[in-house]
Amino acid sequence: MTDREKNGNDIPAEEFIVEGRNPIKEAFRAGRPIERLYVQDGLRDGPVLALVQMAKKTDAIISYVSKERLDQMSETGRHQGVIAHAAAYEYAELDDILDNARKKGEDPFIFLLDNIEDPHNLGAIIRTANLAGAHGVIIPKRRAAGLTPTAVKASAGAVSFTPVARVNNLSQTIEALKKEGIWFVCADMNGELMYRLNLKGPIGVVIGNEGEGVGRLVREKCDFTAAIPVRGEIDSLNASVAAGVLAYEIVRQRLS
Amino acid sequence: MTDREKNGNDIPAEEFIVEGRNPIKEAFRAGRPIERLYVQDGLRDGPVLALVQMAKKTDAIISYVSKERLDQMSETGRHQGVIAHAAAYEYAELDDILDNARKKGEDPFIFLLDNIEDPHNLGAIIRTANLAGAHGVIIPKRRAAGLTPTAVKASAGAVSFTPVARVNNLSQTIEALKKEGIWFVCADMNGELMYRLNLKGPIGVVIGNEGEGVGRLVREKCDFTAAIPVRGEIDSLNASVAAGVLAYEIVRQRLS
Repeated sequence: MTDREKNGNDIPAEEFIVEGRNPIKEAFRAGRPIERLYVQDGLRDGPVLALVQMAKKTDAIISYVSKERLDQMSETGRHQGVIAHAAAYEYAELDDILDNARKKGEDPFIFLLDNIEDPHNLGAIIRTANLAGAHGVIIPKRRAAGLTPTAVKASAGAVSFTPVARVNNLSQTIEALKKEGIWFVCADMNGELMYRLNLKGPIGVVIGNEGEGVGRLVREKCDFTAAIPVRGEIDSLNASVAAGVLAYEIVRQRLS
Repeated sequence: MTDREKNGNDIPAEEFIVEGRNPIKEAFRAGRPIERLYVQDGLRDGPVLALVQMAKKTDAIISYVSKERLDQMSETGRHQGVIAHAAAYEYAELDDILDNARKKGEDPFIFLLDNIEDPHNLGAIIRTANLAGAHGVIIPKRRAAGLTPTAVKASAGAVSFTPVARVNNLSQTIEALKKEGIWFVCADMNGELMYRLNLKGPIGVVIGNEGEGVGRLVREKCDFTAAIPVRGEIDSLNASVAAGVLAYEIVRQRLS
């Protein structure tokens, strides 16, 4: 694997990028999970509008971009004004995650990622979620890494076992899950030392964006805030390392 | 005075490149000699102006260049509009790490990396070592990632605070450090559950290669083997996540 691939800037695998009107239409019709549809600015003819309709119906994100940008993204040079990114893996539903906990007869243990941008971090966190015995991972649809080939690869196979659901709004999802009796802890430097918190029982762990941490709106929905102790000079762990450290404090408390 | 003169030798100092806003800020804050700061033409936002101020204060030369020029100079592809040329990050000596512990009046707490190959993992582990309060990181000279710009960037500034020493032979280094009263724990799936081990006192944590774990020769030198509990279907954490989880079990025990 080259550095560039590790950086998540890799050229998408061929099957991951779909170019041109007919190929995209066929991909939609075949039920392939399309994550994002790029449409050339100003194109509004019938076939393009039909693709936009299909994208809306399947909750794909639609981005209008310049022809130059499409030309850059294109691998075939024949995009005809539309390029689609397919997910490398199918997303689960929120209920799949709760069912997973129920089937195992365990208190739900869920990861919520507030805009993790690096697909390597996303993959590493899914891997950690699996090993820590969490029942699923929830990510937002927008402004976040999705299940790209890079993320799937970084998960080291965990995406096959640990359901990953995408939601429109993390705050609303937290509200809904609270009604199921789940408590939410958010990872934040300014919280209570994690060892002092009771992290047993049904729990959702909220991990923030690489640069900015957990957003204010999401943070305010959390029941408590857990801090990983800082004994050095710099100010924060890598997001996937922080997720691992906090997840394993939960594992420790559950095992004890 | 040039870097070469400062280094006092004829070996050309690898002109070391620091890329991105936070890494450069941390380099300034740590008092590293920045020779020259390259700033993208027209960038005048707060964080960039703060770097320019720091450069003026420390007599660094400031050059305004085009984005294309920065792209050419960049080794990571993520310069964020600023690149600094600094003196090479010098590797520390083993004694620097022990001195670091002595000065702080703490039992030594050292990371030893058995052939970590991915510079992102190396950087993330140095970052974790800093935050967990470890006194240094030891890496082998051969078959392992070194302090490349990618590793330095992934360390989020930690390389400026946490000494990194390179050694010829990890097993021999472990032998030597044992004579200083340090115990060695190696991370391995087949070990004792880490919560059951006494990880207080002078300790060296050995983290293995991404694919193969800790090599046999090194593992045999370790006093005990710690296992992170596995509650999922796949078989191992990302190396930098595993390092974080084990390091923070040590932190927890030291704090308790």
